[in-house]
Amino acid sequence: MNDNKNRYCVIMCGGVGSRFWPYSRTALPKQFIDFFGTGRSLLQMAVDRIKGIVPEENIILMTNAQYAGIIAQQLPQLRPEQILLEPARRGTAPCIAWSAWHIKALNPDAKIMVAPSDHLILKTDEYGECVTRAFEFVEDNDVLATMGIKPNRPETGYGYIQVGDHLHGDFMKVKTFTEKPSEELARVFIDTGEFFWNSGMFFWSADAIIRAMRDTAPDIAAIFDGISDYGTAAEAEAIAGAYPRCRNISIDYAVMEKAPNVCVECVDFGWSDLGTWGSLYDNSEKNDQGNATQGCKALLFNSSNNIVSVKGDKVVVASGLNDYIVADVDDALLIVPRNEEQKIRIYVNEAKTKFGDKYI
Amino acid sequence: MNDNKNRYCVIMCGGVGSRFWPYSRTALPKQFIDFFGTGRSLLQMAVDRIKGIVPEENIILMTNAQYAGIIAQQLPQLRPEQILLEPARRGTAPCIAWSAWHIKALNPDAKIMVAPSDHLILKTDEYGECVTRAFEFVEDNDVLATMGIKPNRPETGYGYIQVGDHLHGDFMKVKTFTEKPSEELARVFIDTGEFFWNSGMFFWSADAIIRAMRDTAPDIAAIFDGISDYGTAAEAEAIAGAYPRCRNISIDYAVMEKAPNVCVECVDFGWSDLGTWGSLYDNSEKNDQGNATQGCKALLFNSSNNIVSVKGDKVVVASGLNDYIVADVDDALLIVPRNEEQKIRIYVNEAKTKFGDKYI
Repeated sequence: MNDNKNRYCVIMCGGVGSRFWPYSRTALPKQFIDFFGTGRSLLQMAVDRIKGIVPEENIILMTNAQYAGIIAQQLPQLRPEQILLEPARRGTAPCIAWSAWHIKALNPDAKIMVAPSDHLILKTDEYGECVTRAFEFVEDNDVLATMGIKPNRPETGYGYIQVGDHLHGDFMKVKTFTEKPSEELARVFIDTGEFFWNSGMFFWSADAIIRAMRDTAPDIAAIFDGISDYGTAAEAEAIAGAYPRCRNISIDYAVMEKAPNVCVECVDFGWSDLGTWGSLYDNSEKNDQGNATQGCKALLFNSSNNIVSVKGDKVVVASGLNDYIVADVDDALLIVPRNEEQKIRIYVNEAKTKFGDKYI
Repeated sequence: MNDNKNRYCVIMCGGVGSRFWPYSRTALPKQFIDFFGTGRSLLQMAVDRIKGIVPEENIILMTNAQYAGIIAQQLPQLRPEQILLEPARRGTAPCIAWSAWHIKALNPDAKIMVAPSDHLILKTDEYGECVTRAFEFVEDNDVLATMGIKPNRPETGYGYIQVGDHLHGDFMKVKTFTEKPSEELARVFIDTGEFFWNSGMFFWSADAIIRAMRDTAPDIAAIFDGISDYGTAAEAEAIAGAYPRCRNISIDYAVMEKAPNVCVECVDFGWSDLGTWGSLYDNSEKNDQGNATQGCKALLFNSSNNIVSVKGDKVVVASGLNDYIVADVDDALLIVPRNEEQKIRIYVNEAKTKFGDKYI
């Protein structure tokens, strides 16, 4: 085991996962669910994957206060000070900023990996090697590194990273970050070989990300520079006052698209963003008609390319459904075309307005 | 009150209602369900409608043994001898034959109305008048009378009766009974003005139906002629041995299409066969998009002409559904096009084979 005491892993697990409703509920978002029935939630798997690479005491969870109880239950080995409770939802930039200022106060030499808690990774050995190389690269170079996943299909649900000059090994300069493309454009991306999926995983030194924040998002940096209580009992109260003043913005918009020293490690370890029903469909076993029934008791007639997911012991009989998501959980039923999965968030918000929080 | 002691009403309530799955379940078919949330089941409403016209002690329920408990609960005023338990499912002809032989033994002058238990009737006053006229007509004439409903649309889910010569008042000779027509043919039916919906309600004297049975279905008549214990404690045992020997056949095929003295009372009292989802859709309030949501918490986007029915406190979010039935009850979910409702029975049977009885 190499000396890894300066390595930290920040796992973001405060999202509500509304695009995965009704499985993902505000009270129990998808990262806390044992999605594949393996006995481990997505968050537990994220911790399992990293704990041989980063000392367990250097794992920091960023989450919302309402999930503190669930996390204590799922990860009893973590000490309370490893769990930072965001007092408001402000997107990934303020969340990552807090983690950086906090960790820098604990260890000025810290190198930080930032990881979402709701991804699926199939080849964990290769993942471990890639993560280790990324830590080594940011230990040796003053860069903000992201992981780009080699695409295996023209996916329209992910953002893409276009790579530029070669740096070292699998590390390349970033030419551009792109929004989710149309299918036509996604095909072009694949054909060029220059585009990789934006995984939302990042590596940097505490110093490098703080400097980049001061440069590209000075308003947010100023808020965290104004706090001197990191790592003390007074930190939570200071954050409670300061954090809500941050604007709501993602780390991609706030920093990655603006900083000059951004690079990407091009990897391929069987990754999927389980952020959407479509990605679950892609990762599920399908029958000859392309129906993924998640092991539930479903009988589908004249139906193809659907994902059917039903909680509990329940029979589904359907006919004439093509390319749909059917998801049934207790007091909520969702039936939408797979190509509308980006709208689920909007639909669910309307349902929340109309019927109340309890179903969402 | 006129002297009505010879009037009997046979209510058939032994069906499993598989076309109305998953609301209608083998353990609790639709006739026992409080469908409209009025506090009365369809069967209770059928009894309520008739009890001012026929003495309550002359109401006879024909049902399956497994429903004896439900009936005792829903209709505690009926004596056990008013409930005849069919030892096997054999269609309407054997069921009606048993009722006729049984009632004839109780009262040789009996006039009998046969009614399904799962119909919706909106104008109960007019219904009562039509029923009374039908009793009077079969008291005065040696006929087998059925009720034909004036059609208000080219419904393809019902059989039709073509009327012939006028007899008296609203009573006409029957020219033909027809199967469920195509939509094109149904339109022709409506345009001619000669076709009425076959309601499945019948009126006759015990004598007339027994004579007709001996003539048109002698094998069935012979089985019931072979029993001499009607109205005694030995009846059930005799039926248990004899009834299963009857072939499975409807009263329409066995008698009505063959007997020479068949007539129809042409009526219009807001009738619907609640045998199918389509008929429930027709009888439900709809929004501007033609969606009938049965008062449930449904939010439908880009969707029209659906019927959504969900039991319990549950939210439905759907998109891109047109002309569908969505029905969710506890451990069963049905999603099929409305124009496939005649196939639901087949689908449900397959589900029974595949997943077992408990969901059906």
